Amino acid sequence: MLDAREFIRAKRDGRRHAAEDVRGFITACQRREIPDYQVSAWLMAAFLNGLDEGETEALTLALLHSGRVFDWNGLGRPAVDKHSTGGVGDKISLILAPLVASCGVLVPMVSGRGLGHTGGTLDKLESIPGFRTTLAPDALRAQLDAIGVVMVGQGPDLAPADGLIYALRDVTATVEREYFIVASIVSKKVAEGADAVVYDVKCGSGAFMKTPEDAGRLARRLIAVTRSLGRRAAARVTDMSQPLGFAVGNALEVRESIEVLRGGGPADVRELTLELSSLMLHLAGAANAGEARARVTRALDSGAAWERFVALVRAQGGDPARVERPDGLPAAPVVRAVKAERSGVLAEVDAFGLGELVVAIGGGRIAKEDAVDPRVGLMVRKRLGEPVRAGETLAELHLASDDAAAAARAAACFRVGESGAAPELVLARVE
Amino acid sequence: MLDAREFIRAKRDGRRHAAEDVRGFITACQRREIPDYQVSAWLMAAFLNGLDEGETEALTLALLHSGRVFDWNGLGRPAVDKHSTGGVGDKISLILAPLVASCGVLVPMVSGRGLGHTGGTLDKLESIPGFRTTLAPDALRAQLDAIGVVMVGQGPDLAPADGLIYALRDVTATVEREYFIVASIVSKKVAEGADAVVYDVKCGSGAFMKTPEDAGRLARRLIAVTRSLGRRAAARVTDMSQPLGFAVGNALEVRESIEVLRGGGPADVRELTLELSSLMLHLAGAANAGEARARVTRALDSGAAWERFVALVRAQGGDPARVERPDGLPAAPVVRAVKAERSGVLAEVDAFGLGELVVAIGGGRIAKEDAVDPRVGLMVRKRLGEPVRAGETLAELHLASDDAAAAARAAACFRVGESGAAPELVLARVE
Repeated sequence: MLDAREFIRAKRDGRRHAAEDVRGFITACQRREIPDYQVSAWLMAAFLNGLDEGETEALTLALLHSGRVFDWNGLGRPAVDKHSTGGVGDKISLILAPLVASCGVLVPMVSGRGLGHTGGTLDKLESIPGFRTTLAPDALRAQLDAIGVVMVGQGPDLAPADGLIYALRDVTATVEREYFIVASIVSKKVAEGADAVVYDVKCGSGAFMKTPEDAGRLARRLIAVTRSLGRRAAARVTDMSQPLGFAVGNALEVRESIEVLRGGGPADVRELTLELSSLMLHLAGAANAGEARARVTRALDSGAAWERFVALVRAQGGDPARVERPDGLPAAPVVRAVKAERSGVLAEVDAFGLGELVVAIGGGRIAKEDAVDPRVGLMVRKRLGEPVRAGETLAELHLASDDAAAAARAAACFRVGESGAAPELVLARVE
Repeated sequence: MLDAREFIRAKRDGRRHAAEDVRGFITACQRREIPDYQVSAWLMAAFLNGLDEGETEALTLALLHSGRVFDWNGLGRPAVDKHSTGGVGDKISLILAPLVASCGVLVPMVSGRGLGHTGGTLDKLESIPGFRTTLAPDALRAQLDAIGVVMVGQGPDLAPADGLIYALRDVTATVEREYFIVASIVSKKVAEGADAVVYDVKCGSGAFMKTPEDAGRLARRLIAVTRSLGRRAAARVTDMSQPLGFAVGNALEVRESIEVLRGGGPADVRELTLELSSLMLHLAGAANAGEARARVTRALDSGAAWERFVALVRAQGGDPARVERPDGLPAAPVVRAVKAERSGVLAEVDAFGLGELVVAIGGGRIAKEDAVDPRVGLMVRKRLGEPVRAGETLAELHLASDDAAAAARAAACFRVGESGAAPELVLARVE
């Protein structure tokens, strides 16, 4: 039986935890043998005094084994997943999951809801009327076998100790530490049964990581811990100095994803989808590096990915007609243009500010229990480095009701200057 | 309304709290608007990143005003108290409170129970059959007016937020920080209505403070914070490299206190009582520095202090006959001598170890809810620097039943060597 006070004292005094003590602590947390006030004292001590690689691995393993660990080996195909560290307008999962599944690889994707300034895949999917994001384990297995893809939330069975710890971190100001983030992400990805995981580490004004150095370090940590648990992993550090694509907001992002699935859509969304999905195929062992890119491009352009998306919507209770018709998704009643005040070049975008604005107009959550309005959001009309004329539209706000203050707030997120450049989409490849 | 998460984050990031934020946090804690897990995260952040003087004062004030603040001005005499930071065999309060009261100064003493290796004044008093350590506020005022002294525990009205915070510190490994200790002590002393407080900061093997430097710093902090709240204060740093007096254990210490009150007892107990009580008299404005020592010496030697002690016992429900007869107090059935194995000089005493031993044989508490056996303890028979012959008695253990292991443990707390010296009793006077 672990002495919680001694465990807290050890980290308070900067000592290193043995792996079995980390396991004992997490097990006792999960059994509610250790009260929350002791867990949060430890979280703060670990926040301030750090966890090293070995402790991070031990924490990840302990979170993983706090619940069910799925295993898809019986289905005869490799399982692969992608995780993004969170950005603005990042709808890649909606396209990539059915795309990779259509190439014969399983995608057992467990996603989260939007919290803070970033959107959540589950919220986006739920803007499709009828779409269910919870599945019983048997139904999940059957669907994965039948169509190769599921897109669900983290049920109570999956790494439940991570849920407890995350809820406490959120309310005790102990969120922003790489080792906590890594343990939380990796434990869930391994628990969902992925043999290989591709990490998309966002970097820039709309991401948690502001510099390529920080993003690169997080990418290496994610890969190292995933490999220590016997799974394959690779990462891309990608640009988040402006929203990805044009659409930010739940239904708007689903609509844009459908455009990409049907062969169109913004170039950056298509490009990043192909980059990440070809890496998934390669990492899963389903194609060598040379073939993978051609395979996923063909699957996207042939309509195979789109068909798989429609099958996914149908399998999880959504009405396929709602994604097949251009007006099938909920739409905001008011659209207001955000105009440029001066001419020049789009020099800077406050992607974080745009993400927060979409939350503020109802498209995201401030508290966990808040409802989300699927209709609202914005469409970015200018990209970094593009010329802008005074009076031109920078973005369109999609609103539940007219809101001049929101438009002013949106305008303040764009800086038009003398010069500016389009950023590289993929900043680093970490294998 | 204070944002608890932002308050925690500020201290986590090493920022300084504004006084009103500290007050808001403590007020919200006390109203249970802030859950324990947030309080404990803040405690750990403050433990690791510190509180400065201004924050310590703000915390002290906030704890003070979380409950009733007594005011004895209506009784027409100054009120003074003494607080010891905790040592082994420290029974000074039992003698000094009635002694100072017999000199015409009010002593509204609020004490604690033993926890850890030190004894508690309340536990000692309760070894007098019938003695009650709780009094309703009206009864407390009436007794203080009638006999000038009360000796009680910290009721639920007095600095209740300190009680909440202390309970959390105890279980989250956030006890040992000067600013927490100072705020907890000073808030209670001011709440009990003392106009002046004398601090006895213990230093040595049986104290929390091991060096004169640490003890001196704590003494200065206690004085500064007490003065910032408009009360007078002074301190003595005193020796705790061996138990104070001979007796350690509840009834044994009461018996020794009675000896001192009747003009006898160990020299160090008498001397420290006179030192601290004369300082109390002086600080209360009841005597100048020159007269004070003579006044308290006379009160002790004339029997006035003893009579006041008997009046106190009677007033709080104890049977005066039990303190007047030598066999009136509970006594242990087994007494076992601890013998010296070699000849030499008593060079070192592990006072902390002796304190823990008395707890282990039933004289103190490991958990708050443990019962205490008033009979058990030990009588030290050799002082530091005294010559010792092999086979001589170093101490006598008073036990509920025979226990050879306890005797061996006691023996290991005494080191007989080639040389040794008697320590100074008063190491520093801090005004």
